[in-house]
Amino acid sequence: MEHGGNLDGAAARFGGDLADWLDLSTGINPRPYPIPPLPPRAFTALPTRSDMAGLEDAARAAYATDASVVPLAGAQGAIQLLPRVLPRGRARVLGPTYGEHAAACAGAGWRTETVATLDALDGADLAVVVNPNNPDGRRHAPEALIALAERVGLLVVDESFADAEPELSVAAQVSDRMVVERSFGKFYGLAGLRLGMLLARPDLARALRDAAGPWPVSGPAIAVGCAALRDEGWQEDTRGWLARSAARLDALTLERGWDLVGGTTLFRTYAVGDARAEQARLARAHIWTRAFDHSPGWLRLGLPPEDGWTRLEAALVPD
Amino acid sequence: MEHGGNLDGAAARFGGDLADWLDLSTGINPRPYPIPPLPPRAFTALPTRSDMAGLEDAARAAYATDASVVPLAGAQGAIQLLPRVLPRGRARVLGPTYGEHAAACAGAGWRTETVATLDALDGADLAVVVNPNNPDGRRHAPEALIALAERVGLLVVDESFADAEPELSVAAQVSDRMVVERSFGKFYGLAGLRLGMLLARPDLARALRDAAGPWPVSGPAIAVGCAALRDEGWQEDTRGWLARSAARLDALTLERGWDLVGGTTLFRTYAVGDARAEQARLARAHIWTRAFDHSPGWLRLGLPPEDGWTRLEAALVPD
Repeated sequence: MEHGGNLDGAAARFGGDLADWLDLSTGINPRPYPIPPLPPRAFTALPTRSDMAGLEDAARAAYATDASVVPLAGAQGAIQLLPRVLPRGRARVLGPTYGEHAAACAGAGWRTETVATLDALDGADLAVVVNPNNPDGRRHAPEALIALAERVGLLVVDESFADAEPELSVAAQVSDRMVVERSFGKFYGLAGLRLGMLLARPDLARALRDAAGPWPVSGPAIAVGCAALRDEGWQEDTRGWLARSAARLDALTLERGWDLVGGTTLFRTYAVGDARAEQARLARAHIWTRAFDHSPGWLRLGLPPEDGWTRLEAALVPD
Repeated sequence: MEHGGNLDGAAARFGGDLADWLDLSTGINPRPYPIPPLPPRAFTALPTRSDMAGLEDAARAAYATDASVVPLAGAQGAIQLLPRVLPRGRARVLGPTYGEHAAACAGAGWRTETVATLDALDGADLAVVVNPNNPDGRRHAPEALIALAERVGLLVVDESFADAEPELSVAAQVSDRMVVERSFGKFYGLAGLRLGMLLARPDLARALRDAAGPWPVSGPAIAVGCAALRDEGWQEDTRGWLARSAARLDALTLERGWDLVGGTTLFRTYAVGDARAEQARLARAHIWTRAFDHSPGWLRLGLPPEDGWTRLEAALVPD
């Protein structure tokens, strides 16, 4: 499956050193949370139950929920694990969206289909909604999701891009009918740490923990996660910085004649005409973006770091 | 399930700051591989396919195999994943051994039993042997395991403690009937990184990768793993240091009247009489060791770091 962040493939195709590329192919914050000094035992020792409990507490506070928290290797870890733990049945994914949901369900033996409307999820044993959605930024009101949960077996709400818009989250409404998946790496800009959380009721959380085993996340991920999830000042500042950067990107691409399809403040998706051609054009300037087989007119751009704007502006000058 | 490394539980019961405890409850090398400077993108970026391929190549070289390598979150990650990917059937584990094998099989829906001899594994759909074994150090010749693989559906050889004794490894003989699990954290002293490998034939490796998802291990684990697995000088030096330390521990405990049951150079298991009583006695000196419900006379000790010997010697003085 094609993913953003596949910079090695881009460099193999268009040349250049990996280090010289401007990677806008993901929705990862380019101004990461500063890694605090890590105690040696984060690397050397097995994480203890207390270490994990501290991380779970920090996540509960950050996500304003009293649900059970299951830390995993990224939101991707949750996407992989959940359909392998539940009894198989009929899964429906609201699409187009992040392709790994349908792939993980199908791979685990679920009859899986992608549907186009929220109502078409009704009656599924497992229903998946990404909110806000990637790549088009489609949003659903919490009330609509809470109501939907009553009409399906289990509703999975992937809130990988909800950190910048906490008012969209249903983390406080986790129930026997609804779980929430959160990403750590995107908003905090630390995707390499591989950290994400599944929020669930205690019974399901226990089954997920049993399937994941006692040490699913690393000591560095726990140490950094605890600090970052508790740093409300950084979070608030980052929400502002992301919003300003997203607006700046919209203004810049408007000059090139692109139309905003939608997005979050971590990525913007534009209607650009022939997306593969525009992607290749930017790639020749060693700027990597994300195109989609399901929507040949769409190009998704993440935010550049502060020192990347000049280069992006130059590459986006109308022909 | 009880595990070594549960120092928080020990401190809760016997008091003292976590930092003041001498943790000998695991088989983790106390002289860890020195963490090299990590590039920022190890933390910030999603690992690329090239990053993963580099790690897999380094593992193939270190383990002297041409098998497919699937990096996972520790040997534990392999133990959790494998029984969830294979069609369920009858699993047999050669015991007593590390308890997570039987637990993971049973949890994934296998009819699971623990047997006492290699021959009693015959006919199992999934057979598990830990070689060398934890906690008793029992060893099986590679030829015996290669022959056994022909008499079971799939033989899993957990070589978590084989780095110090490469001649025991069957990594070069991975086949459609035999997979190998390797730990990174134990020999390299970096259990917090959560890195391990499953060695398998390409078809099974593909199924495992699909189930694990695209980014199962962290950027820091990949960067450190690549360096350490290629550092043959450090590995050779470490084999010598571990052997000297294990001999020193045997000499010391002999004075206390303990009998060696067996072990590897990463841990030693002794017959000590009442193991829970001896464990508690050492714990009052804030030295934590591992006792086993299945063998009430056995106490397992990992190696102390260089600055821990004096304290251990003092605590082991005969009453």
